Amino acid sequence: MKVKVAAGIDIGGTNVAAALVSNDGKIVARFNYPIKNYPAIENLVDELSNIILKSSDDNNYELAGIGIGAPNGNFYNGSIEFAPNLPWKGIIPLAKMFHQKCSVNAWLTNDANAAAIGEMIFGIAKGKKNFLMITLGTGLGSGIVANGELIYGHDGLAGEIGHTIIIRNGRQCGCGRKGCLETYCSATGLVRTMNEWISEGKQSSLQNINANEITAKQIFEAAQNNDALALEAFKFTAEILGMALADAVAYTSPDTIVLFGGLVNAGNLLIGQTKHYMEQNLLHIYKNKVSIVASQLPESDAAILGAASLVWNKTS
Amino acid sequence: MKVKVAAGIDIGGTNVAAALVSNDGKIVARFNYPIKNYPAIENLVDELSNIILKSSDDNNYELAGIGIGAPNGNFYNGSIEFAPNLPWKGIIPLAKMFHQKCSVNAWLTNDANAAAIGEMIFGIAKGKKNFLMITLGTGLGSGIVANGELIYGHDGLAGEIGHTIIIRNGRQCGCGRKGCLETYCSATGLVRTMNEWISEGKQSSLQNINANEITAKQIFEAAQNNDALALEAFKFTAEILGMALADAVAYTSPDTIVLFGGLVNAGNLLIGQTKHYMEQNLLHIYKNKVSIVASQLPESDAAILGAASLVWNKTS
Repeated sequence: MKVKVAAGIDIGGTNVAAALVSNDGKIVARFNYPIKNYPAIENLVDELSNIILKSSDDNNYELAGIGIGAPNGNFYNGSIEFAPNLPWKGIIPLAKMFHQKCSVNAWLTNDANAAAIGEMIFGIAKGKKNFLMITLGTGLGSGIVANGELIYGHDGLAGEIGHTIIIRNGRQCGCGRKGCLETYCSATGLVRTMNEWISEGKQSSLQNINANEITAKQIFEAAQNNDALALEAFKFTAEILGMALADAVAYTSPDTIVLFGGLVNAGNLLIGQTKHYMEQNLLHIYKNKVSIVASQLPESDAAILGAASLVWNKTS
Repeated sequence: MKVKVAAGIDIGGTNVAAALVSNDGKIVARFNYPIKNYPAIENLVDELSNIILKSSDDNNYELAGIGIGAPNGNFYNGSIEFAPNLPWKGIIPLAKMFHQKCSVNAWLTNDANAAAIGEMIFGIAKGKKNFLMITLGTGLGSGIVANGELIYGHDGLAGEIGHTIIIRNGRQCGCGRKGCLETYCSATGLVRTMNEWISEGKQSSLQNINANEITAKQIFEAAQNNDALALEAFKFTAEILGMALADAVAYTSPDTIVLFGGLVNAGNLLIGQTKHYMEQNLLHIYKNKVSIVASQLPESDAAILGAASLVWNKTS
């Protein structure tokens, strides 16, 4: 009998990463390409389909299906809808395109939902029925699992906690509104905080770097070297995230919140302080019940495993 | 064959209402008692059990089960937990008590969750898989339905949207924190708004009534008579509720929000304006997709039908 594998594809703003994944979460082959190689989506689908089919064939695997995580991916219709950070505009029926090319079922969802399913099947949320997945990257993505199922909502677009308003009339968000959570709590949000404070004249070891060159990683390193402003920026980020998560808990009462993304490497600078501020803001009935944990999946693999999980979630 | 009925019990701060309900939502017998008759919970369970069993027996009904809606009712353990507005303190294992007395299964949940199930089975949300139930009474209660199921959370206490913070450091809430949604958007919240403004010297036809005597109904009547301050109080309430619902939609992406409670009688003064402000605040992907509707169940029956639905939801 052939070994079954799922193809997991993670489409980001810069790269597309794909892999063949066994149903116990092992990556048995992997491929990476820069997005800029594919000005037309058809090129990407053609090339990836060919390599996935060939690799399955060469290794005598049976391809069980294709799972894709992508920004603005809608699970219900399998389309990427108006993704601002991808080169392909409008509505892209990506699941259908892969299905037609590879003759297997294909599913699409957004990156944070894929990560949530990945954590539920292979990761730290294994067996959990009620948890939140929060991805802290360029923005803040979220996937909500309740009653053991991912919540997609009536239109496939549930779980945009990053676009709830945490500070009314606060920072301008890319979505056109003001004060969205992700403008404060994300790698980009942390950098914005630091740049704002430096431009106000606050002192930091990073103050001589151009504003548009400071990275979240540099702020973390400065914080490790006891730069007071960098430490304060992490505290500020954690305080806002803690307040937001206290509100989030009142919706679906999860027992666990899984954080994922580069910022999570800051460890207790982020997670410990976020937990502190969440507890401070929780309604009494939820206090001391909710864990905040870091994803344990290898960083480069989590999104791919999550995408592949879409297949195993449907076929196993 | 005997006709099956469920007992629905609605426990409120002032009254307990109970009824025998057929599986198509018809109330075939009803009972009402003041809560103050029952200083000990055992007295209530004894008397209600006797009347439910006797009425079922007299009418040749088969009692299929008992459903109870009560403040701070926890679905998972069937207990009322520390309800501030009830005479019985601590943890009351109410479902178990009724089960032991009546020898049928008994389920308990909080009032807003019971109303959500009632709307899903008998009401305006019939057949809907993703909706929010919002009850506007003394507080703001909520029940969240996603993927066709009520969300209870890991501990049975999900759905406390009334205790998300809408105005940081805002009004003192009974829960001990500040700025909870229900301190603004509820019958009590509307009255607080009016009293605050009158005490600041703003003019209204209600300004000569004692602050602790003004009711939401009087504010509604004043608004109908074009009292500018009463109209403004409804607008203020709707604006805050609209902002909060815009955030709520980003969690579970419902297609419908059902409003229930005395305030809903204000019709477009509340619902129309809330819809307006919700749309103004929604993330673009959710715009013009979400209906806000009033519950159509008879007001005195909705909570009982909801409680009885707990039985039909489990046994039909």
